[in-house]
Amino acid sequence: MNLAIIFGGQSYEHEISIVSAVTVGRVLETSPLYIFLDSDNRLYEIPSNKMSSKLFKSGEYRKEKKLNFTFNGFTTEGFFKKELKGFTVLNLIHGGQGEDGTIPALLEFYKIPYIGPRKDASTISYNKHLTKIFADSIGIKTVDYETLYIGDERKLHKLSYPVIVKPLSLGSSIGVKVANSDDEFQYALDVAFEYDSEVIIEKYIDGVKEYNLAGIETDKFILSIVEEPQKGDDILDFNTKYLDFSRDSRVVEANIDNEIRLLIQDSFKKIYSPIFRGSLIRCDFFVIDDEVYLNEINSVPGSMANYLFNDFESTLKELSENLPNVGNISVKYEYIDTIQKAKGK
Amino acid sequence: MNLAIIFGGQSYEHEISIVSAVTVGRVLETSPLYIFLDSDNRLYEIPSNKMSSKLFKSGEYRKEKKLNFTFNGFTTEGFFKKELKGFTVLNLIHGGQGEDGTIPALLEFYKIPYIGPRKDASTISYNKHLTKIFADSIGIKTVDYETLYIGDERKLHKLSYPVIVKPLSLGSSIGVKVANSDDEFQYALDVAFEYDSEVIIEKYIDGVKEYNLAGIETDKFILSIVEEPQKGDDILDFNTKYLDFSRDSRVVEANIDNEIRLLIQDSFKKIYSPIFRGSLIRCDFFVIDDEVYLNEINSVPGSMANYLFNDFESTLKELSENLPNVGNISVKYEYIDTIQKAKGK
Repeated sequence: MNLAIIFGGQSYEHEISIVSAVTVGRVLETSPLYIFLDSDNRLYEIPSNKMSSKLFKSGEYRKEKKLNFTFNGFTTEGFFKKELKGFTVLNLIHGGQGEDGTIPALLEFYKIPYIGPRKDASTISYNKHLTKIFADSIGIKTVDYETLYIGDERKLHKLSYPVIVKPLSLGSSIGVKVANSDDEFQYALDVAFEYDSEVIIEKYIDGVKEYNLAGIETDKFILSIVEEPQKGDDILDFNTKYLDFSRDSRVVEANIDNEIRLLIQDSFKKIYSPIFRGSLIRCDFFVIDDEVYLNEINSVPGSMANYLFNDFESTLKELSENLPNVGNISVKYEYIDTIQKAKGK
Repeated sequence: MNLAIIFGGQSYEHEISIVSAVTVGRVLETSPLYIFLDSDNRLYEIPSNKMSSKLFKSGEYRKEKKLNFTFNGFTTEGFFKKELKGFTVLNLIHGGQGEDGTIPALLEFYKIPYIGPRKDASTISYNKHLTKIFADSIGIKTVDYETLYIGDERKLHKLSYPVIVKPLSLGSSIGVKVANSDDEFQYALDVAFEYDSEVIIEKYIDGVKEYNLAGIETDKFILSIVEEPQKGDDILDFNTKYLDFSRDSRVVEANIDNEIRLLIQDSFKKIYSPIFRGSLIRCDFFVIDDEVYLNEINSVPGSMANYLFNDFESTLKELSENLPNVGNISVKYEYIDTIQKAKGK
């Protein structure tokens, strides 16, 4: 598997992506090509022995080889151009450009094969409101919610406290707060609106059972184990969640009834197919009264959820060898004559 | 106004875009730079005196200067590179890459100022289902509808005939059919599924009054006149609609009550602001029992609806001088140390 990891990017999760890239590189047998996208949209090839957080924090990465997109790959800048071609790009930019459709648009435009959500899938998973609507349309339950725009009257319309307030388009618990009262709600809105002009407010269920499952579909599904994620003292502790991105050791399978496991797997398949083809995603579910609820779709999961798979490398290989075709539209020139004639030109 | 028109693109409306570009170029006092995107994602600079449909149909355009994206503009291919910079790009690619978010993603990545829908706005207007949901969320009525995926049981769930069947993500009446019976419905589905894996089915209202309005918002709104579009013998006649794209002569204002005109203008403003900032859009409305319904949002309207404006050129200039800032995310490296310490690295 000839893999290039693209990471960094303009995103509030830029740092998380660096940690993720280091982790994924570490668990793969063959060292990938590392392509760093900085916050100024410049690309750099990073030698694997230099892959450490210091390089990026210090700005030292700017001394590495600058790359530009070209058809089927990248070229180095300068007089003698080196071409980097013949690999599959793993999109490991969390949030921002990685999940808002920018990276898929660039990679498809330049005809570079890639692992990651396609444009449609990005739209659905990046916007938590659309995720709700999508889930509903395929018969998957989600927790009750309402949304608020930044200029709207700041009150609850149908939910009651406690609620959880989230920026509409961010992952990794950034800007997320639980509110138990009006005062806390106003504060939670202040925080969330720092990151997004729209927020989603959900009923908060204390102590709810949470389960994660990752997987891919090619001609068959390959699903990971079901994990009950460890929670810190505070369910929303950013540092605890953040550590997830550097996880590289296998976790223990959740201790749940087989019936619930099957329900979770079945929900995952419904969500994945066909819109998430080409990507490895992790879905986070709640189980409430023996029913499965979708909490979130992570279309570029932290460290690709490598720790959930029995054989992560072969799962990634299977995916890279079975990427969906980009549906090219064949252009015809049937009507131009008609029009020009009709216009007398 | 230093304008570059990008047109063509991978889209079922590729040809329409060529006609549109010729038309917009014709109505502007200063000749724009013409940048053609062919169906293979290659860019060409087309001299204005060669802008005719023959050039594209024959493939002769391939003899023109090849361009590549670079930061802030384009460069010519070859040994001595010419840089094309310092202009605003007008996105005139109808459908496909022009409206599915690809062109905004590319132009934003390369920091090229542009007139056209941003990524969010593209998502909402390109997918007719999302348009409905969006309209509902801002209190704008639309006609009753249902949707079908390609594998679903092919029957109506709540609507009754006649209905109109449309591919989910196409404009210009391509693949659109009215169905008065089960047989016609099956045929309409066959046609629509040729273009998209999802279709939207709406109640068809024969003889409904239709009105179009275009506009922009900077620090103020500039709205066009309200037009009652001419219909061919068949409301869905592709050729009639197609001719719209080459329109360059002013049309007559619709003969309607001032109250209805104000309702239409008010609906337009609600739809436009703030998500369509940076673009000139045309909204097509129905009026039923003195109530305004949104039919469609054209985020890259045929020939930029130039024929609807009293002063098209100054409207475009006003927009090009007041484009929204791209909200760059400032990247911080606060957490990396914490993580690395926690991991003992």
